Formats: sequence, C-alpha cells, structure tokens
Amino acid sequence: MKIVVLGGDGFCGWPASLHLSDLGHDVLLVDNLSRRRIDEELGASSLTPIATPQERVAAWREVAGREIRFVELDVAQDYDDLRDLLLTERPDAVVHFAEQRAAPYSMKSPAHKRYTVDNNVNATHNLLAAVVETGLDIHVVHLGTMGVYGYGTAGMKIPEGYLDVTVTPEDEGAAPVEQQILYPTNPGSVYHLTKVLDQNLFAYYAKNDRLRITDLHQGIIWGTHTDQTARDERLINRFDYDGDYGTVLNRFLMQAAVGYPLTVHGTGGQTRAFIHIRDMVRCVQLALENPPAVGDRVMIINQMTQTHRVRDLAELVARISDATVELVPNPRHEAAENELHVRNDTFLDLGLEPTLLEEGLLVEVEDVARRYADRADLDKIPCTSVWTQEQRPGVPPSRSAATAATAATAV
Amino acid sequence: MKIVVLGGDGFCGWPASLHLSDLGHDVLLVDNLSRRRIDEELGASSLTPIATPQERVAAWREVAGREIRFVELDVAQDYDDLRDLLLTERPDAVVHFAEQRAAPYSMKSPAHKRYTVDNNVNATHNLLAAVVETGLDIHVVHLGTMGVYGYGTAGMKIPEGYLDVTVTPEDEGAAPVEQQILYPTNPGSVYHLTKVLDQNLFAYYAKNDRLRITDLHQGIIWGTHTDQTARDERLINRFDYDGDYGTVLNRFLMQAAVGYPLTVHGTGGQTRAFIHIRDMVRCVQLALENPPAVGDRVMIINQMTQTHRVRDLAELVARISDATVELVPNPRHEAAENELHVRNDTFLDLGLEPTLLEEGLLVEVEDVARRYADRADLDKIPCTSVWTQEQRPGVPPSRSAATAATAATAV
Ligand SMILES: NC(=O)c1ccc[n+]([C@@H]2O[C@H](COP(=O)([O-])OP(=O)(O)OC[C@H]3O[C@@H](n4cnc5c(N)ncnc54)[C@H](O)[C@@H]3O)[C@@H](O)[C@H]2O)c1
Ligand SMILES: NC(=O)c1ccc[n+]([C@@H]2O[C@H](COP(=O)([O-])OP(=O)(O)OC[C@H]3O[C@@H](n4cnc5c(N)ncnc54)[C@H](O)[C@@H]3O)[C@@H](O)[C@H]2O)c1
Repeated sequence: MKIVVLGGDGFCGWPASLHLSDLGHDVLLVDNLSRRRIDEELGASSLTPIATPQERVAAWREVAGREIRFVELDVAQDYDDLRDLLLTERPDAVVHFAEQRAAPYSMKSPAHKRYTVDNNVNATHNLLAAVVETGLDIHVVHLGTMGVYGYGTAGMKIPEGYLDVTVTPEDEGAAPVEQQILYPTNPGSVYHLTKVLDQNLFAYYAKNDRLRITDLHQGIIWGTHTDQTARDERLINRFDYDGDYGTVLNRFLMQAAVGYPLTVHGTGGQTRAFIHIRDMVRCVQLALENPPAVGDRVMIINQMTQTHRVRDLAELVARISDATVELVPNPRHEAAENELHVRNDTFLDLGLEPTLLEEGLLVEVEDVARRYADRADLDKIPCTSVWTQEQRPGVPPSRSAATAATAATAV
Repeated sequence: MKIVVLGGDGFCGWPASLHLSDLGHDVLLVDNLSRRRIDEELGASSLTPIATPQERVAAWREVAGREIRFVELDVAQDYDDLRDLLLTERPDAVVHFAEQRAAPYSMKSPAHKRYTVDNNVNATHNLLAAVVETGLDIHVVHLGTMGVYGYGTAGMKIPEGYLDVTVTPEDEGAAPVEQQILYPTNPGSVYHLTKVLDQNLFAYYAKNDRLRITDLHQGIIWGTHTDQTARDERLINRFDYDGDYGTVLNRFLMQAAVGYPLTVHGTGGQTRAFIHIRDMVRCVQLALENPPAVGDRVMIINQMTQTHRVRDLAELVARISDATVELVPNPRHEAAENELHVRNDTFLDLGLEPTLLEEGLLVEVEDVARRYADRADLDKIPCTSVWTQEQRPGVPPSRSAATAATAATAV
C-alpha cells in the first residue's frame, strides 16, 4: 500500500510509520514540526534524545534498507500543497495524527485553546476537503480519543462509537423507535472537544461524499519503544514527561526513575483506558487492512486494551520502583472518581494480542526512564495548566464557582 | 440592557439591532462586512438598496433619536480586539449572528467549504474564549439552525434541542437507563455542519466554564421589513434572491415578481421550517429577557412557527401572483421527500404571536419583490452550487455514486 502519514514525526506517527515501512508499505511522512516548536515554547524536551526527521529517515534507510520520504507541510494551513501531494502520490490511505494532542496544553491560555481548535479542526477538514477534491478513493484513518465519550457513564459498557437507543415519540399511540446514534459525547478539555468536532466532520463527509473513514478512539499510550524504534538510537521515539505532554503513566515512570514522588491529581480515582505503543502500531496496521466500504458510515474502533484507576497505577509503579505517592490538587474540572468499561472486540477479533501493563512496565522503567534520567528537567514535571478561570491563582471567582474544582498549585 | 450584536449588518442582525434599540437597549453592532464582500465576489446584490452601516446608524439616530454604535471587526480573526471590546463595554449579552450562513455558498468549492468551517468555528470559539477570559457574566445568544436536526426523523416530533432516550446496557441483568441527550445531528451541508460544531462548543463551555448560553435553532426566515426597517428607506433590510443566499421563499417571491418560473428543486417534496423576520426579532428579544442561569446546560429553543412543503409554497406563490412552477434537478444531496414536525412551545409560551404565511405573503410580493424588481439580475437566480463531486458538470464519477443526486444543470 502507499500510505501518507500526517503528523509522522510525532510520538505515535513515527513508530507507526516505521512499522508500516517495515511491513513493506510505501510510506511518506508529512509534518509541520509544530510539536518540536512547542517543546521550545515550553522549554521542555523529550526525555529520549530524538533525531531530526531527516536524520531519522536516513538512519532507517541505513538500518532497514527502506525508503521513507519526509515532506514538511502544515496540514491546517497549506491546503493546496496537501491536495497536490495527494494528487501526485495517489495514496491508498492517509493516516491522520497531525493534531495538537495535549489536554493540559489546550487549557493553558485563551491563545492555546484557540490554537488547538483552529489547528485541529482545520487540519481534519482540509484533509477531508482535499480527498473530495482529488476525487481519489483514499481511506482516511484518524486517531481520535476515548475521551470523546466522557468518563462515567452510569457503569455502562462504552460501545465502539455507536449507541443503540430507544426513543419513545410523544405523539399519542406512536410506537417506540430503535435507533443507532453516535455515542453522546462529553469531552473533558478543549483538546478532547476538538476530537468531538472531528467526529462530526467525519460523519458528514462519509455521508455526503461517501469517503471511507476509520476513526480510532484511542486510549492513553504508554511505553516508548517498538521493534523498529529500538533498532538504532537514531530511530528512538520521543518520551514526554512534562506537565503538559507527559501522559499519566509515562509521568509516573519518569518520576520514579528520578526519585520524585509520583504526583496523583485529586484522589487518583479517575479510571482511564490504556494501550501500549506496540499495540497502537499494530492497530493502525489492522485498521488499514480492514477499511470500510464506499458508502459505509464511519468505522469507529476503540483502540485500547486495559483500563486502570490512576491511583492503582501510581501504587504499581511505586511498588516496582520504590517510589512514594503524593496527592496534589486536580487541575482538571472532572469527577473525582469514575468507572470505565469499554468494548474493544474489533481489534481483538482481528488478532490483536495486548501487551499488558504487568509485563511491560518494568522494561520501561529500566530501558527508558532510568537510562535517560539525567536528561530530565524536574521543574517541567508539574502540570501548571488549570481548567477554569476560578482555578487560576489570584483570579477572583466570577460566575459562581460552586462546582469548579479547587485551585491547583504547582507541586 | 447593554447588548453587543455580532454580525449586526446582516439580514437578521440589522433588524434585530433596530428592534432592541427601539426597546431602549444600548446596542453596539460588530461586523466585518464580509457579507457585502461576498456580494461583490458573486456579482450579486440585495434586491433592496441597502445603505452602508455608517449611513444606517446615522439614519436611525435621525429617525428614532437613538444611538447605535458600529465597530468593524472580524470575530473569527481579531480575538484581542473582541476581548478588549467586551472588557470595555461590559455588555449584559452578546447576540451572535456573525457566520457564513448560506448552504449553497458553503458547497461551491473546496475554498468555500474551508472558509465556512474556518470562519464559523473560529468566530464562535473566539467569542466563548473571550467571554471566559474577561471573567464577565455575559449571556451569549447564538443563532443556530433547524438544519442541525436533519430532516426526516421517522415522523417524530423534533424536541427543543434535547432528546429523551432509553439505553439498555448489554451487561446482564442491568436495568435500562433513561437519559436526555443532545438531539443526534444530521446536517445537510457544510454550512449546517458548522452549526453542529457550534453546538458542541456551546455544550463544552456551558459545562466547563459555566457560561450562560442560549442557542436558537432557527427556521428559514421569510419577509424583509420589520416595524423599524420600514420607517425610512435608509433603514431598509437586505433581500437576497440569488442562487446562493436567496432562501427558498424569497427566491419564489422574486421569481414571481419578475415573471420568471418558480424553480423547485427535485420534486419539491422537502418540508422546511419557517419564521417571519418580525417574529425573529421578537424571539431574540424574548431569549435575551429569559436567560439560563449560571451552571445551566445550554438553553436550546426552536425558533420557527410553521412548516411547509416546498412545492406547496411554490403553488401558493404561483396562485397569488399568476406565476408558473418549474421542476429543476436538485443540487443538494438529500431525500426527495420528508416530513417535519417540530416542537416550538417555548417561544409560544413566552408570548410569541406568529405571523402566518397566509397573512404576510401578498404584502411581500407587492412591497418588496415587485417594488424593486427592476434591480434584479435574472442571471443570478439559479443555484449553481452542487453538493457532490459527481454532480459537477464534466467530472467523472469516482467513489461509486449510487446514491448521489443527479447532475444539476443551471436552469
Ligand atoms: N499520545 C497519546 O496517548 C494519544 C492518546 C489518544 C489519542 N492520541 C492521538 O494520536 C495522534 C498523535 O498523537 P501523538 O501522541 O503522536 O502526538 P504528537 O504531538 O507527538 O504528534 C503529533 C504530530 O503532528 C504534528 N502536527 C500537528 N499539527 C500539525 C499540522 N497542522 N500539520 C502538520 N503536522 C502537524 C506535530 O508536529 C507532531 O509531530 C493525535 O491526534 C492524538 O490526539 C494520542
Ligand atoms: N437567514 C435565514 O434564513 C437564517 C435561518 C437560520 C439561521 N440563520 C442564522 O442567523 C445568522 C444570521 O443570518 P443572516 O441571514 O442575517 O446572514 P447574513 O450573512 O446576512 O449576516 C451575517 C453577518 O455576519 C457578518 N459576519 C460573518 N462572519 C463574520 C466575522 N467573522 N466577523 C464579523 N462579522 C461577520 C456578515 O458580514 C453579515 O453581515 C447566521 O448565523 C445564520 O446561520 C439564518
């Protein structure tokens, strides 16, 4: 297959590209390097020493003897270039990772909220409009998030995208109507909100233009290496541990490695969905190999393998690494405790064999967090973003803040 | 009340502003005049001779002795100016009309799709982010559309925004759960899609930031004059009759006035919701006087008074004006026939007295369409936008077009 990977320089995009190239597919990376610029903005950097895209693809050529091309292009802004690239390349599929993906970053300031909405909505919409304009039959695979469902659904198992409901019309004597609808969303941040907007864009373009679209509702990734990124240090993947981009488990691993207490937000009662990075690359492959047909609705697949409560994760990491756990105020505006039950049959039925936390965790602590611990900047670990005005230090409450979370202070 | 009207130079925004000013409110208009530039782009213009915003507010000062201020500003782009304006003015409410609002225009080309998404999403999101940043308790009233619901809902009455559903969990022995959800959307064009995106933005900001938001799901406006716009010709409202911006009924009136056949798309079996422009201004007033409380979910109100089948409208207009009806291919990708039943109790309970089609139609034909008929450019009447690639003249079908509508030819 010929595959264009948008956001191919990122934490998920890079290992997915290598995996697809390793399978013999013709892979072209597109990225505007915005994530690397955000590192500079935040004064943060990947724990692991990542090479430039040019060095990365050169190393891959050397190590694997395979060609991956790299094109620097802003999917949200350079519409004509994107369309022309599709017209020239005529790919079978485009995998779309090219969005601002950190919830805390999306909440930092009005400018960050606006950047996240503008970048993510226009990136997704440009891709859809471009595929339509080319008239080509390109399968679009998008990375969405489990976070569109919202957390805490009365203990109900979250289906893969669509929910069966019964509607009882008010009209007298009318029979109840069974319908399948897009699962009602309840995003927890501006970042998650953009994935809800994406979902509506996909539904429309699948209906009106008969585009073939797969939306992968992904859990939180953990782990760093895949078979391919581990082959050479120049191929190494990024590992974010800072308060904005570090996802919860990677943050804990890092904290454990440097002897910092594991900071748990609130009571740590939040339950989240997880998936290992090796399983992610395999899921992307499976999604590409099993596209919807022309005229189908959007194929939505839950891309996660396990759910964990945050405080259980902290305790697990603390146990294997002799760290301590510390509770800090939650910067997010969310329920303190939630259950999460998720259907994930599609990928399991297609043959996915999950990497379980219990197996992979120790390797991560040793091969990544401890190995590169001296590169860590401990000042970057705390999350300084807050979800509401009321939580901002020194801001007087305006709209009565009865349900807003308590003020978050940097640890 | 102090009220900022975004999009206050438009077809709805101008008469709404005059009505609110007439009631004694302090009104400030904001507009970037994009609609007037689109007239130039399309080589079209309002049938009625509209004055500049500066002339309009000067005439209103002269005629009514009231001050309306006008600020030229792009809500989607000039975020800092918008926020500073809110900080300086400290309005009680903002009424948000500032979006690209024509479905055919939104489907003209990839550039038009992208402009509509970019302009509308960023305008709405900037407003919400700015209100949050100011920390002020400003009631946001937005003009949405009945089109978010989609047409054709198994004969069921469309509720005001929220739908009661019963979900039966798969888990063994679990009891059915009753829930109220945002009505599942089914937008019919990229324009309508942007209103679906807006709706998700509102739900999030009402929840996370406790903004007070009213979303008016408006039917198609008909009519031109209100009590205020009729007082002086310099106050006259715009009347669009071109294929892009002319809404169906105004297009028929115009066609009748100039002796052009009334062009009905497809079988004319589409049923749509309508509201007279006088009722629209009154609804905006009622919405402002009855805001939701802080912490409430978005208040959604259906702003429509009657539903009509398009071919019935054509026949009605033909009868009173001696015109003929002609069926032309439908440029839209939609069901040929649909029913539409809508709940609209909220405004009726608040005292709205609908202007019925049977009463107002003849006045429109005579006072507007016939009066200004000599200003009409008949070439602009046909709709040249099409909904799918397959409908574009000379474009070979790509993704098998089994359900796409037939090619639309200019009349
Ligand atoms: N990492 C996770 O735990 C996780 C979980 C669920 C979903 N996802 C989703 O997976 C996707 C990839 O996430 P990631 O962790 O690799 O993030 P990342 O930030 O590491 O990678 C995203 C890449 O996209 C690029 N990009 C952003 N906007 C772009 C634009 N307009 N044009 C071109 N390139 C652009 C960035 O430069 C970056 O290289 C995202 O859409 C994210 O929402 C990630
Ligand atoms: N006219 C109808 O039948 C109808 C029906 C349902 C809903 N609506 C909604 O009502 C609202 C007003 O519609 P209308 O018929 O008055 O349209 P219109 O185009 O006449 O008015 C919209 C006004 O907003 C301005 N505008 C657009 N983008 C802007 C931006 N970024 N910054 C500042 N100003 C901007 C335009 O210049 C224009 O004056 C729209 O949101 C529309 O979707 C209209």
